Amino acid sequence: MNGSIIIYLLGWILNLEAAFMILPCIVAIIYQEWSGIYFLVSMALCGGIGIACTFRKPRNTVFYAKEGLVSVALGWILLSFFGSLPFYLSGEIPVFEDALFEVISGFTTTGSSILPDVEALSRCMIFWRSFTHWIGGMGVIVFMLAVLPVAGGGAAMHIMRAESPGPSVGKLVPRVRATAKILYKLYLFITVVMIVLLLLFGMPIFDTLCITFGTAGTGGFGILNSSCGDCTHAQQLIITIFMILFGINFNVYYLLYIRKPKEAFKSEEARAYLGIIVLSIVLIAINVRHLFPSLYEAFHQAAFQVASIITTTGYATCDFDQWPEFSKTILVLLMLCGACAGSTGGGLKVSRVLIGIKEIRQEMRSLLHPQSVKVIRLEGKGIDPSTLRSANAFFVTYALIFALSLLIVSLDNFDFTTNFTAVAATFNNIGPGLSKVGPVCNWSGFSPLSKYVLMFDMLAGRLELFPLLLLFMPGTWKKSF
Amino acid sequence: MNGSIIIYLLGWILNLEAAFMILPCIVAIIYQEWSGIYFLVSMALCGGIGIACTFRKPRNTVFYAKEGLVSVALGWILLSFFGSLPFYLSGEIPVFEDALFEVISGFTTTGSSILPDVEALSRCMIFWRSFTHWIGGMGVIVFMLAVLPVAGGGAAMHIMRAESPGPSVGKLVPRVRATAKILYKLYLFITVVMIVLLLLFGMPIFDTLCITFGTAGTGGFGILNSSCGDCTHAQQLIITIFMILFGINFNVYYLLYIRKPKEAFKSEEARAYLGIIVLSIVLIAINVRHLFPSLYEAFHQAAFQVASIITTTGYATCDFDQWPEFSKTILVLLMLCGACAGSTGGGLKVSRVLIGIKEIRQEMRSLLHPQSVKVIRLEGKGIDPSTLRSANAFFVTYALIFALSLLIVSLDNFDFTTNFTAVAATFNNIGPGLSKVGPVCNWSGFSPLSKYVLMFDMLAGRLELFPLLLLFMPGTWKKSF
Repeated sequence: MNGSIIIYLLGWILNLEAAFMILPCIVAIIYQEWSGIYFLVSMALCGGIGIACTFRKPRNTVFYAKEGLVSVALGWILLSFFGSLPFYLSGEIPVFEDALFEVISGFTTTGSSILPDVEALSRCMIFWRSFTHWIGGMGVIVFMLAVLPVAGGGAAMHIMRAESPGPSVGKLVPRVRATAKILYKLYLFITVVMIVLLLLFGMPIFDTLCITFGTAGTGGFGILNSSCGDCTHAQQLIITIFMILFGINFNVYYLLYIRKPKEAFKSEEARAYLGIIVLSIVLIAINVRHLFPSLYEAFHQAAFQVASIITTTGYATCDFDQWPEFSKTILVLLMLCGACAGSTGGGLKVSRVLIGIKEIRQEMRSLLHPQSVKVIRLEGKGIDPSTLRSANAFFVTYALIFALSLLIVSLDNFDFTTNFTAVAATFNNIGPGLSKVGPVCNWSGFSPLSKYVLMFDMLAGRLELFPLLLLFMPGTWKKSF
Repeated sequence: MNGSIIIYLLGWILNLEAAFMILPCIVAIIYQEWSGIYFLVSMALCGGIGIACTFRKPRNTVFYAKEGLVSVALGWILLSFFGSLPFYLSGEIPVFEDALFEVISGFTTTGSSILPDVEALSRCMIFWRSFTHWIGGMGVIVFMLAVLPVAGGGAAMHIMRAESPGPSVGKLVPRVRATAKILYKLYLFITVVMIVLLLLFGMPIFDTLCITFGTAGTGGFGILNSSCGDCTHAQQLIITIFMILFGINFNVYYLLYIRKPKEAFKSEEARAYLGIIVLSIVLIAINVRHLFPSLYEAFHQAAFQVASIITTTGYATCDFDQWPEFSKTILVLLMLCGACAGSTGGGLKVSRVLIGIKEIRQEMRSLLHPQSVKVIRLEGKGIDPSTLRSANAFFVTYALIFALSLLIVSLDNFDFTTNFTAVAATFNNIGPGLSKVGPVCNWSGFSPLSKYVLMFDMLAGRLELFPLLLLFMPGTWKKSF
């Protein structure tokens, strides 16, 4: 384990976080809020430690997958700790674990909130809370790679692989830094388009920025207690469309960007993802038809909720906990499925589900014809055995962490639906669940132990399990050179 | 597809079922019940068709894995159909799908009942209902292999592999028929020991037989509305111990039988299984301590329920739906885990869980040391890639069928806990779930559609998914020669 380079990278992450905090400071100045001071304090702490760690570039630049995984895991933990300071120091979220929960929920783009009354927060706090979604969506470390010359090519690949969601990282272009830059350009571009559209349709600028950050990162923190229930019809429609767009693999946008629309439309995962969305909307709309004045309204509401859940955003325009059980079950299954790999969404990822279904077909075929062995293909390419093995290990690990979390959270003695959907909603970085963690409820009722478990789940879900788990393995900390 | 040999095998299964029906006829004579006539009618139908199918031995004896899987799947469906006739014809279960549900629940050793009042059935019907557990536990087709010279060595292996639970079938001795014989001898021996013990502790002979059949097959049909709640303390203890014993891999008993106790005690799966049981009992006993007059009683009740759920038997001595959520969550997780492979129990099987955990460790290790590839070992032997691939495909298929079943059952608009545990309880062949399908409830409230889905789940769970799924693949029915 090369400790010095990890500390150097962590230092840069803290420097970046300090820089990001300039934005809420500006918001505080505009709205003349005193609580902006706590951002200055946090910036000083964060930047001070960061500069100390990055003062000297380490001589030992040995960097393997292990170092990448560990620095990403530790980076996110540090990021969360310092990000929670403004909330805690200002007393706007007086309990430390609640402040930490809120900011982890932000960075991991979960969007579960322990706040009973969001509107009571000062503007700069609300802005920071939503901005964490935007930072966390594409990944703070990918951002670091894009803007700073901190790590060599091999190291950059290890880091990016550890932070990016999905079973395998497709480098868009041979150089990792160039890939990171393209990703952030596309991310920024779609974000700006959404901001312009919402402004055109009459949303105030502050609301527009916060809602767009939450959509882009597929986070889902609302700025009103009603989430998106009070937006106009047209605004809800825009949010629906952009939630779906941010759930698509960014490779597709890259292909469009370099003018290869044919290849973009061939993406197997994106097609499956859109197919699941359409099917779910139709089934739910028919099922909830009687709750709304018109069929169109039923479709509108179904579309918003489906887009919000499958992309793991978590905005709500109505209390779907009141919907019939069939619709709720579809939403729970969409929670588990999640969006495309390489998007800002969470969950198991559509491509993993596709790989799973292809494995079933292969197994059935090999039962019928034991002699024929066929390679599983995704996006036209054969899946190599190590990717397949990783995907399987992912399934199993996912199930095991899910079961253990469920067990610990059940100690609070809430009902099974609450516990199950609370774990599903945090682990998949969605936000709301059902029953006591439904879209109109908040998460403050859990015990501190459960909150820490759910925080772990949010981080594990965002970083795709293994980086965080490695921190608990003794072998990780052994000196190997 | 060699149709003629499949029909021949199915004929023998029907002949056997007709022979098994002699026992409830004897019970009817002893208790002087007229409803015994319906067993004679069913026997005539069953045996008539069976003899017609087995009249001539087919000349084409080509028999591959495909034929084995298809004949096992069809065999179980036929077995269930004819087994349900006495209930339906006698009018004691007046609705056909209820009669079918009850007997599939019997043969698959699930033990879920649609009967609101078990005690209203005549004695011969109760006996048949419990006896189906005993037949289904070790497998009717394994029985056929043991007693009849119907199939050659290769064919026998294919059939046995298709019917036996677990990721890989360990042949005890080189010859399949001999293996089947040993299995049934051991099964019969432990059954007889249990009968003798229960009789010694004062249980009436009829109750003893029915309870023992339910324990041996890990089925769980009670003969009283209170399940085992009215048994004496000692009787409950005997049932607890034998439930645990029937959940152990029969290889272990074989090793004891051939006087290799050292190897028997080395069984990794059996040790893990017993470890899980002890841990669960301790955790639950502490958690439910306040509900019982003494710590001993809490342990006693916890032990019975844990043994009943992990072995997928499903007997109950108290209404555990009233227990704290933590204990209920442990029970739900035990439902999913299940007993040992090669036992009469259902569920995912402990060995699959072990394989899964080892896959996680291997994946973590390969992240730390990308160059080192280690083989996963179970019971001291390396797991070959095709077994691993099957186990993974099993996990994924399991999750997918679970999700689809949950979705269809949710159309009945019961609560999430009911739907989730109903699917878990039938798919893993357990019996009771929680909420509206809890241990003191019955399953008659579901719609016919849900009942058929749950019947499919019971059969798919008992036959380990693939034989039943193959029936739906067009490739299965293609003529290949």
